[in-house]
Amino acid sequence: MIYADNAATTKMSPAAVRAMISVAEECWGNPSSLYEHGQRAKDVLEAARKDVAAVIGADAKEILFTSGGSEADNQAIRSAAALGAKAGKKHIISTAFEHHAVLHTLERLKQEGYEVTLLDVHENGIVRPEEVEAALREDTCLVSIMYANNEIGTIQPIREIGAICRARNVLFHTDAVQAVGHIPVNVAEDCVDLLSASAHKFHGPKGVGFLYARKGVRLTNLIEGGAQERGRRAGTENVPGIAAMAAALKEADGAREANAARLTAVRDRLIAELKTIPHSALNGDAERRLPGNVNFCFEGIEGESLLLLLDDKGIAASSGSACTSGSLDPSHVLLAIGRVHDVAHGSLRLSIGEDITDEQAETIVRSVKEVVEYLRGISPIWRDLTSGKKKFIL
Amino acid sequence: MIYADNAATTKMSPAAVRAMISVAEECWGNPSSLYEHGQRAKDVLEAARKDVAAVIGADAKEILFTSGGSEADNQAIRSAAALGAKAGKKHIISTAFEHHAVLHTLERLKQEGYEVTLLDVHENGIVRPEEVEAALREDTCLVSIMYANNEIGTIQPIREIGAICRARNVLFHTDAVQAVGHIPVNVAEDCVDLLSASAHKFHGPKGVGFLYARKGVRLTNLIEGGAQERGRRAGTENVPGIAAMAAALKEADGAREANAARLTAVRDRLIAELKTIPHSALNGDAERRLPGNVNFCFEGIEGESLLLLLDDKGIAASSGSACTSGSLDPSHVLLAIGRVHDVAHGSLRLSIGEDITDEQAETIVRSVKEVVEYLRGISPIWRDLTSGKKKFIL
Repeated sequence: MIYADNAATTKMSPAAVRAMISVAEECWGNPSSLYEHGQRAKDVLEAARKDVAAVIGADAKEILFTSGGSEADNQAIRSAAALGAKAGKKHIISTAFEHHAVLHTLERLKQEGYEVTLLDVHENGIVRPEEVEAALREDTCLVSIMYANNEIGTIQPIREIGAICRARNVLFHTDAVQAVGHIPVNVAEDCVDLLSASAHKFHGPKGVGFLYARKGVRLTNLIEGGAQERGRRAGTENVPGIAAMAAALKEADGAREANAARLTAVRDRLIAELKTIPHSALNGDAERRLPGNVNFCFEGIEGESLLLLLDDKGIAASSGSACTSGSLDPSHVLLAIGRVHDVAHGSLRLSIGEDITDEQAETIVRSVKEVVEYLRGISPIWRDLTSGKKKFIL
Repeated sequence: MIYADNAATTKMSPAAVRAMISVAEECWGNPSSLYEHGQRAKDVLEAARKDVAAVIGADAKEILFTSGGSEADNQAIRSAAALGAKAGKKHIISTAFEHHAVLHTLERLKQEGYEVTLLDVHENGIVRPEEVEAALREDTCLVSIMYANNEIGTIQPIREIGAICRARNVLFHTDAVQAVGHIPVNVAEDCVDLLSASAHKFHGPKGVGFLYARKGVRLTNLIEGGAQERGRRAGTENVPGIAAMAAALKEADGAREANAARLTAVRDRLIAELKTIPHSALNGDAERRLPGNVNFCFEGIEGESLLLLLDDKGIAASSGSACTSGSLDPSHVLLAIGRVHDVAHGSLRLSIGEDITDEQAETIVRSVKEVVEYLRGISPIWRDLTSGKKKFIL
């Protein structure tokens, strides 16, 4: 299998697997227990907290472990909203192409009386800091903008936005699920107040993530109960999973620059090759995008058929977010960058991993070309397009 | 180490570890992905769902995977409360000795305008079904009573309470975190509508649990986002952890009767021996309690010192719930069964596991006797008691 869907999930690194097993077998006590066996688990937990914090430029006390990125997003936004409500501020700024963990939480808040402004992300899939500034109001309690988009990989001007929010004293949350471990992220330099991350996106385990909350930003519990995580997230901590996340993150961060250089080169070759397919277009900015992300639209075909035929050829890719792959609706991200329904339906996301070989990249290109050609050959839409009955958009 | 704190957490069984590793290394795809590698993960997920459902007499569709028991408790109660509010019913019945995941969620609901009746659990730590019936009102939307108490191990008359709630058409939730895998639990026969469980209490991994919700009981999301878990719990599923939970549960359930028989015998020997310590008392009913649970109060000593000295002797035990072990307050469970503060402070919970040997049980008895005697020898309270300055309660 050529796995080109690392934005959906990654394989755990051997170091992460080793950490998980060794903690599960040796330090499996409850970190809240007073005896030595419990305190050893506590030590593992706190060492992991330090390691995670160090990678993003935070203090260990600012890291809250969660069950993943979605939980972290929900808690970050709910917390900022609760703080806002207390201060009589119920306006939130976000973008139209956030992950659903953000957008659906905002939907719920709208039902609870909050007002939400979703900024345009333009054709290139990048938010304009001046538009964030212009959208800020006296009653804005939160700006939530993702670090890098999960479908088209575009990297947002987080530092500029962070500076604007800090100057205006408005909380800034970033869903950094696709960024952490892949591109440099520093909460202090970026002026981020709340940041969400997920372990299984950087070769850590599924079911583990973290929320960074700047010191002084009071979190609201999503999960009430025991006093774990300084009273902000109840439930016995998943110590083996957390240790595995820390191991994976340290490793990813250590190899980040080398990986990014290599991935960027392969990515750009893939983009150059796929661009030669007629009536195709790259989605999102060509440069300001994640090192491993390639996202194309091919006119006249259905993304789902493309994926299934690529799967037959041993290539695992996606049309967009895995979280919504059961849905027949076109990607909200592609609609947000201005793709019309028909075109958005013919999308392909390739999110390549560090271990991709040149040969695999060539196989991907050859296979995509073959499958697109085949599908166009049997597509009634393509017939309409080529016969002039319908007009080409791309 | 003699580990006698299985109510706090258990060691993962070898079968659970094997399942976790094999899924993490072989079926690590995102179960929402359409390609074969994703669908294999989906198959693992759904097989685990069937296995878990079968053990508690549920249908697979009624099982929602969560990050643990606390999350399941929160979601169950929040869901029932939301359904109640829609029907104009905002009264909830629970007990004074529930886990904090239940009690603290109820506290939050009180702030939101719900009325909560906490039933007495009496000296023996057992709720009386007739008192549940008497507490039911026209506006009661939920009864939440734990299956077995996490500190004193008393097993509640769940089936009787379930029948009462079903007859009155009131939703019934049970926190079965300490029960599942240890004593027979059948949601159909017990007339339970919502049930919470946690994997790490039955030799599964930490960070995984499940919520049973009877068909027709609409859940409210705690975590909004992707369409995972039929839209009721967003976030990429922790497939390796879930598979490990299912493996552990099948194993625990298969060996349940044999384990319970052996544990009950050891438990009763421990109770008989510890009763010979003067001015001591068993907490909770002597018979209607979990097979592995022993909980005593020893007058004139501090539970925390007892634990630390037992730890020195290589015995891991607790004074009560691990979730609150940082707290100086006496156990709310012991207060609920009528222990006064001074006595409640001198508590010891031994929760033994299936692999305990007779020799280990004897070591526990000998060590507890030695440590209690030693601590009383240096305790000013004990001096006051023996000199007649203070009166013995036990």
